[in-house]
Amino acid sequence: MSVKDHNSEIPDYKSWIYGLTGDQPRLLHMMIRITDADKAIAFYAKGLGMKLLGTFEVPERRVTAYFTGYRPGSTAVELAHYWDDKGPYAHETGYSHIAIGVPDLDETLSRLESMGIEISIPPTILVEGMPRTAFVKDPDKYSVQLFQMNN
Amino acid sequence: MSVKDHNSEIPDYKSWIYGLTGDQPRLLHMMIRITDADKAIAFYAKGLGMKLLGTFEVPERRVTAYFTGYRPGSTAVELAHYWDDKGPYAHETGYSHIAIGVPDLDETLSRLESMGIEISIPPTILVEGMPRTAFVKDPDKYSVQLFQMNN
Repeated sequence: MSVKDHNSEIPDYKSWIYGLTGDQPRLLHMMIRITDADKAIAFYAKGLGMKLLGTFEVPERRVTAYFTGYRPGSTAVELAHYWDDKGPYAHETGYSHIAIGVPDLDETLSRLESMGIEISIPPTILVEGMPRTAFVKDPDKYSVQLFQMNN
Repeated sequence: MSVKDHNSEIPDYKSWIYGLTGDQPRLLHMMIRITDADKAIAFYAKGLGMKLLGTFEVPERRVTAYFTGYRPGSTAVELAHYWDDKGPYAHETGYSHIAIGVPDLDETLSRLESMGIEISIPPTILVEGMPRTAFVKDPDKYSVQLFQMNN
């Protein structure tokens, strides 16, 4: 099985994504299936400030994997686009959501809203003693929780 | 809504999990629902070497959240046990898996097997140019991919 690597400009992106080196276990990435790469990348990159780390096509499997993440060594999000799979995907039975801390919750929500993103739970204190939080739906309707940093 | 915090011994565990401080966005945690906390914690802690970071009960919601992870600042896994929810959960429609890099793939698999964990794909090179990898099923049948570091 061969892979077409789109040669990311990010240094060491393969080690970041696949854990090529290291002497301690590390949570490398989590994968979700997406139906529209442009929309998904816009959400995670433009909307939430992640970088596009690498793009890998596996033509024999008819899939392209887009890895997005914040910084070297941090857990990445793998957006897997199966070319023949039109969705929509089922949600919220086992897997629930990812949570992202942001220094500017209101600005982030405004930016996402201007991109047409649905805010499913507006900013609130869900549970006593926890930071202000909101939930949005990504373009494939995955839940993404946002926490306000420095409350 | 109140929360019963079991007062983890991990320093700064709340900032780790909820991103209390910081000036850059960060992927804090991803949440999956589990049906048996002891089994799930054994898998992620004893099996995969994560620490139990914190345990939070929300009695009004009848849920306990167990956070496990590798080290401060890294993305945690939130194991959410809804007391009245017996499962099993549906998988593999949208969300796919998490991937963990380990320095000792064969030893990790032996340890997991001795715990009764199912190895769904034994070690193989799935795609040219990528590290040796295997898949296991966690106690709630979530897929977990393991990559060999330092191939």
